[in-house]
Amino acid sequence: MRKWFTAFIGFLLFKQGFSQPEDSVIIRRIADDILLNGRAYEDLRYLCKKIGPRLSGSANAQKAVEATARMLKEAGADTVYLQPCMVPHWIRGDKEQGIIHWGKNKKSLSVCALGMSVGTPAAGIKAEIIEVANFDELKRLGEEKIKGKIVFFNYPMQPGLIFGGYGDAVRYRSNGPIEAAKLGAVAIMIRSVTHALDNNPHTGATRYDSTVKKIPALACSTLDAEWLHNLLQKEKKVEMFMKMNCRQLPDVLSYNVIGEIKGSEFPNEIITAGGHLDSWDLGEGAHDDGAGCVQSIQIIRTLKALGIRPKRTIRAVMFMNEENGLAGGNKYAEMAAANKENHLFAIESDAGGFGVETLGISGKPEQMAKARSWLPLFRPYGIYDMPSGGGGADIGPLRRSGTFLCGVNPGSQRYFDFHHAPNDVFEAVHKRELEMGAIGMAAIVYLVDKYGL
Amino acid sequence: MRKWFTAFIGFLLFKQGFSQPEDSVIIRRIADDILLNGRAYEDLRYLCKKIGPRLSGSANAQKAVEATARMLKEAGADTVYLQPCMVPHWIRGDKEQGIIHWGKNKKSLSVCALGMSVGTPAAGIKAEIIEVANFDELKRLGEEKIKGKIVFFNYPMQPGLIFGGYGDAVRYRSNGPIEAAKLGAVAIMIRSVTHALDNNPHTGATRYDSTVKKIPALACSTLDAEWLHNLLQKEKKVEMFMKMNCRQLPDVLSYNVIGEIKGSEFPNEIITAGGHLDSWDLGEGAHDDGAGCVQSIQIIRTLKALGIRPKRTIRAVMFMNEENGLAGGNKYAEMAAANKENHLFAIESDAGGFGVETLGISGKPEQMAKARSWLPLFRPYGIYDMPSGGGGADIGPLRRSGTFLCGVNPGSQRYFDFHHAPNDVFEAVHKRELEMGAIGMAAIVYLVDKYGL
Repeated sequence: MRKWFTAFIGFLLFKQGFSQPEDSVIIRRIADDILLNGRAYEDLRYLCKKIGPRLSGSANAQKAVEATARMLKEAGADTVYLQPCMVPHWIRGDKEQGIIHWGKNKKSLSVCALGMSVGTPAAGIKAEIIEVANFDELKRLGEEKIKGKIVFFNYPMQPGLIFGGYGDAVRYRSNGPIEAAKLGAVAIMIRSVTHALDNNPHTGATRYDSTVKKIPALACSTLDAEWLHNLLQKEKKVEMFMKMNCRQLPDVLSYNVIGEIKGSEFPNEIITAGGHLDSWDLGEGAHDDGAGCVQSIQIIRTLKALGIRPKRTIRAVMFMNEENGLAGGNKYAEMAAANKENHLFAIESDAGGFGVETLGISGKPEQMAKARSWLPLFRPYGIYDMPSGGGGADIGPLRRSGTFLCGVNPGSQRYFDFHHAPNDVFEAVHKRELEMGAIGMAAIVYLVDKYGL
Repeated sequence: MRKWFTAFIGFLLFKQGFSQPEDSVIIRRIADDILLNGRAYEDLRYLCKKIGPRLSGSANAQKAVEATARMLKEAGADTVYLQPCMVPHWIRGDKEQGIIHWGKNKKSLSVCALGMSVGTPAAGIKAEIIEVANFDELKRLGEEKIKGKIVFFNYPMQPGLIFGGYGDAVRYRSNGPIEAAKLGAVAIMIRSVTHALDNNPHTGATRYDSTVKKIPALACSTLDAEWLHNLLQKEKKVEMFMKMNCRQLPDVLSYNVIGEIKGSEFPNEIITAGGHLDSWDLGEGAHDDGAGCVQSIQIIRTLKALGIRPKRTIRAVMFMNEENGLAGGNKYAEMAAANKENHLFAIESDAGGFGVETLGISGKPEQMAKARSWLPLFRPYGIYDMPSGGGGADIGPLRRSGTFLCGVNPGSQRYFDFHHAPNDVFEAVHKRELEMGAIGMAAIVYLVDKYGL
């Protein structure tokens, strides 16, 4: 009877891919350590308040490299090292000006240069502004109507899109300058990519290509976009004055920051957890992505505090330059390949420090099934699903070498209120929500370390 | 071949309990209507900003009855009616005082009376204050140490509890006065029931019983609780002065507000969606529970706007007096029984207007299985699970007649920062998160109406 019973339990364990009671106890300890003794929130306070925005190539980014290396040492990582990579060095320069003129009136808008934009000539640009709802309308208007003008892309983030609104609307930020320049526009302004109706302009990287002229690109706040839309309904001729002296300086040496605990049995099998250390320059990079960095550091701290000796090598990685180049993510994958590392698993938290709801996963079907068999261990911590499709920009390049990728998915409705905007500050992050994300990350790192994939 | 195929599809539909493509299209329309044309957020603004706090028996509560009746009519309910119920009428009176005295020093704390507390004598009470960590310590100290004193229950909401922290800590708010009075205490003060460390005092109902004296009960902010704890470590004798003139007035006639769309096929089968209209008096009752009310009204509005003619009778119910008596919830169930209504399903949203993550459900196993078969329809809207155990205080009394109960479960980590506190204001609610809750509610109402349970 007992023999049959043992076999039956063995079968259940095999089916589930984990030993429920023991793992649930250890994950409970992980959660307790993070909620009771965690330092993620205080680390985030330091990154945001003592350092501040951390744009690639800036002095602040370098300070953040040094600070997180220190945090990783204090967290107990066996080894902490910097992985050099060259990063772009774009600077915003003086506060941008965007002034609307009509008749004898004028109004200054709440604007910011898009990241990587060229500046205007020193005296600024003044030209008629013409609104388009989307790329189709731009093309319909054609060179005749667009040449010599400033194009105002007033494409709102679509309220009906639950999760995909950003991906849909960000096309205007990314490709607006190229598409407008093809028709002879002298500059563009986009409506900020956010559902929020407020006065914050949202930056983010824009792109150029070699076929057309690089023209300056601004974002205005959504309230100003609405105001300008209404003005353009009423007024025949509206002009805009733009002045920006943002510019690209020569590339700069910077670093990914890596802290690791060497694996006791399979040191060459690597499990990576990370976020990106650089941020846009308008806020404090709290949700994007100080949160992911301090959560990753917390994993190391908690494993050490609980005396968990991983079988595989666990790394917390602060990637540099996610926002405007991905130099860090690319360098990390390049070095992994060069060093013939076996990257088993990588998880990234770069969707804000809000309460995590699901872990997105990408890997071989049998790996996905194994990971999903662990779901019952996550539900007590408010993680309910492991949908297909997971990762992050920085860990994305590891996919080429077959790494199983995982992305932390918090509730997403608030995120774009803060994304790349001046209000992405420490106060916008909730301590317990931040910690819940760290619990989910630490739990899956623990399980992958124990059971492999 | 076709026959076999039809039978097979029929089997699949039976297994799933719904017809995936058609339902997913209709739920997509429901979501679009709520996100693009929804009025829930503006209704909430009205309840919070034009009316404000809505404590049972107050003039504001009556204004809210009239306002939501109007909103339900405007939303398109066939019938809107008020269901009378007598409610307690407790008033806070003048701003409470809680002043700590030690040596020649004094400090005024951020305090509020607990709801339903008796007041102090007109001149106030001054007595030595004694801190206890929990009920065990209170009992250990016994009458000798407690008699004549003010008991300070400094029991923090436990950070390790992910979901159960409130239920655990609220015992001191509910039963503190009874337990302390048994040992001769003259008053109590609790640490506010919240994880947040700030200066907001959190109210909420306390209880008395007939066996012991009713003694006054305050809550202080968590920061003041920490401060007082430190003071009590250092000082031999610390006294507290309390002055409160809160009191209970005679019960008042009030109302549940009900808007319904009569069912076209089974008008006697009732589907209820609700929240509670009353709120505590310190904030604006935005998360608790203006949110649940305006979400419920939105269901009616969206069904009408989309021309969905329900088979069963759909009701949106604004329950009165959840906070300090449950008179509305009890009356609703009583009248349902008296009128021999067949209450098939009831859903309540009373856990804050945050982004919904799961729908908790309580019913017969086969009903639970049927509801869970609908989960794939909810995942695109960020609702990932239907855990066992769902409902709400107001719909709870319907359980006696076998109603299937459902509770909206948003992310819960932020909720108690606002719960019963001055900062539970309109600005604390996020428009899209509020709407996502309404989508989940409307979708399950639609499915239960179509397929029964």
